[in-house]
This record gives sequence, structure tokens and C-alpha cells, in this order.
Amino acid sequence: VGRWEPDIRVKLQEAALTLYLENGFDQTTAAQIAKLAGVTERTFFRHFADKREVLFDGSDALKELICSSVAEASLSKPPMDALLHSLVVVAEIFDNGRKDFVRKRYDVISANPELRERELAKLADYAIGIAKVLKERGMDELRAILAAEMTMTVLRVGMQQWVHGDEGETFATVICKLFTELRAVTEEA
Amino acid sequence: VGRWEPDIRVKLQEAALTLYLENGFDQTTAAQIAKLAGVTERTFFRHFADKREVLFDGSDALKELICSSVAEASLSKPPMDALLHSLVVVAEIFDNGRKDFVRKRYDVISANPELRERELAKLADYAIGIAKVLKERGMDELRAILAAEMTMTVLRVGMQQWVHGDEGETFATVICKLFTELRAVTEEA
Repeated sequence: VGRWEPDIRVKLQEAALTLYLENGFDQTTAAQIAKLAGVTERTFFRHFADKREVLFDGSDALKELICSSVAEASLSKPPMDALLHSLVVVAEIFDNGRKDFVRKRYDVISANPELRERELAKLADYAIGIAKVLKERGMDELRAILAAEMTMTVLRVGMQQWVHGDEGETFATVICKLFTELRAVTEEA
Repeated sequence: VGRWEPDIRVKLQEAALTLYLENGFDQTTAAQIAKLAGVTERTFFRHFADKREVLFDGSDALKELICSSVAEASLSKPPMDALLHSLVVVAEIFDNGRKDFVRKRYDVISANPELRERELAKLADYAIGIAKVLKERGMDELRAILAAEMTMTVLRVGMQQWVHGDEGETFATVICKLFTELRAVTEEA
């Protein structure tokens, strides 16, 4: 793997998203993606196991990022404060020039039931990871599960809102807004 | 469809769950299910489109039940109080002798990634339905989405806890317990 490789990887991802959005995920082949990116099909398969992996390739890294962010959060009371703060840290990474990619990916996944199911399974797996971290940090198991699930709900709903929301609004701002709504939904007026 | 049909339907469901748990979902055929239930394969297909439908056949009815329960809930403040009350109404139906079926179904789905993804997609669809009802009742859209997602989180986590929890504990009790945890997670100590 040479030092030019990251560029090719990004090019392949962008080519893939373009084709998925134009022609549909099911109709697109690895060969077409490679061609649009100006590389051989073999090069495609050196970077991605299959065309679905182009969409889910960053999932493990994101899970690790969220879990380590939760592991480092100060678990003040109420725990959701700290958890949402750790989400803001993650959101800021997305705000760093990734909106276009995230939106395209979101639109591709939304248009395809199988990909939607796959994405939900990934997020459910993140929640299990977060709950594990919280439990290791001494939180009661049931509480940890619930807190983890709520954290992922905020991330998921936040992403929906962000990708098709105001251009000027950051993901971090959306997360903070959801936090306020969460209070409104659960607390006494 | 004669008046003996409901029994056959239940028999087929029970036979299916038995075989899914014993031999795995992928390894089981409609013919085997029919045989165990003492009917022909043709009878199986008069009741279910395929072997997956045996597991998801009640989904639409459950969605309707939850949505109508939310539609009738008094939306006091905070909204989660009313929403969780409507979940308890649903839980009481499950408590009426359905635990064994729900547990077996849960175990079959948990053991199979594709079924898990399918189940998550179903629950995501319920959340969309609940959010729609809440919005129609005048709730702000973002708040409605979040409240609906949290309702489904409580239902999903509650089911996990209930099916493998204490035999004497009702689903309704588990839902109430989760409600308390939800407060603990979101509110100031």
C-alpha cells in the first residue's frame, strides 16, 4: 500500500456514492465504481471487500471512537449530560468537512431496505458497546443499557436532522438541540 | 377459512418456533413445520407467505395497537409519562399468557443476524408511526420523533429484560421499572 492510497480510497468512495445515488445501489457494480474512479476492478477489491463495504467500512472506527469517548466522559449526574457531551465530541469530527459524504451515504442507505436494516444493526451494535463501557464504569446494567440506547437514538435522529437540515447548522448544534428536546420529553414542565 | 383455522395457525406457529430453536431458522423448511403441526404444506402456505412470516405476522397488528394506544393517551407533561402508560397497556396484553411464545420468538430472532435486522427495521417503522400520531396531536416534529424513538427503546429493552427475567415479573412491571431508570438517566439527582 503506497502513500497515494488514501486518495484512491476516497475517490472510490465518492465514485460509489455517485453511482449508488444515480443508478441505485442494487444496479451498481464494483467494475463501474472502479471505472468512474479511474482504477481497475482489482484495485477496488484491494480496498473494499464488496460494494456494501464502501458504505460500512468506517463503522468499526466510529464505534471505537464513540466508545472511547464514553469511556472518558465524566459520569456526572444525570449521566445523559456526560453522554451527550461525548456525542458532541464525535459530532465535531463529522462537522469537519464530512457533511457531503455523510449526506450522500445517508440518502443511499435510506433508499434501500436491506441497507437500512444493516445500518440499524450497526447502530444496535454500537449501543451494546456503549452499554458495556458504562457497565465497566460501574453503572447498573439496566441503566447502562437504557443510557446507551438513548445515546444512539440521539446520534441517529441527530444525523437524520443534520444531513437535510440548514446548511449552516453543525451536527454538534443539532445534538445539543436534541438534548434540550430530550429534557422536554422526559421532565416535568 | 373455517372456524377451526385459528387453532391450526397457532399450531403452525408453535411448530415453527420449536423447529427454529432446535435446528435453526435457516435449516427449517415449511414442509417440516407443516409436518410437525400435522397439516399439509399447502395448509402452511394458506396461513403464511413464507417461514419468515411466521415470526413477523403479528407486526402490523402490534404497530396498530401501539399507535392507537398513543393516539388515545392523555398527553400530559412530561409526554413520556403518557407514552409509557400507553406501553403498559400494550404490555398487559403480552402478560396475558403470551410470554412463552414471545420468548421463543425472541430467541429465534436473536440467533439470526438477518432476522435481527428485520426486527429492528420493524421497530423503526413503529417509531415512525408513533411519531406521526404525536405530530398529528400537535407535538413539535423533532420532539415527536424523539419521544417515539424513546418509547420504542423502552419497549425493545423491556422485552429483552422480560423474556429472560424473573418468571413472576410481568412485562408491565418491567416497563414501569424502565420508566424509573429513564428518569434516573436523564434527570438531575
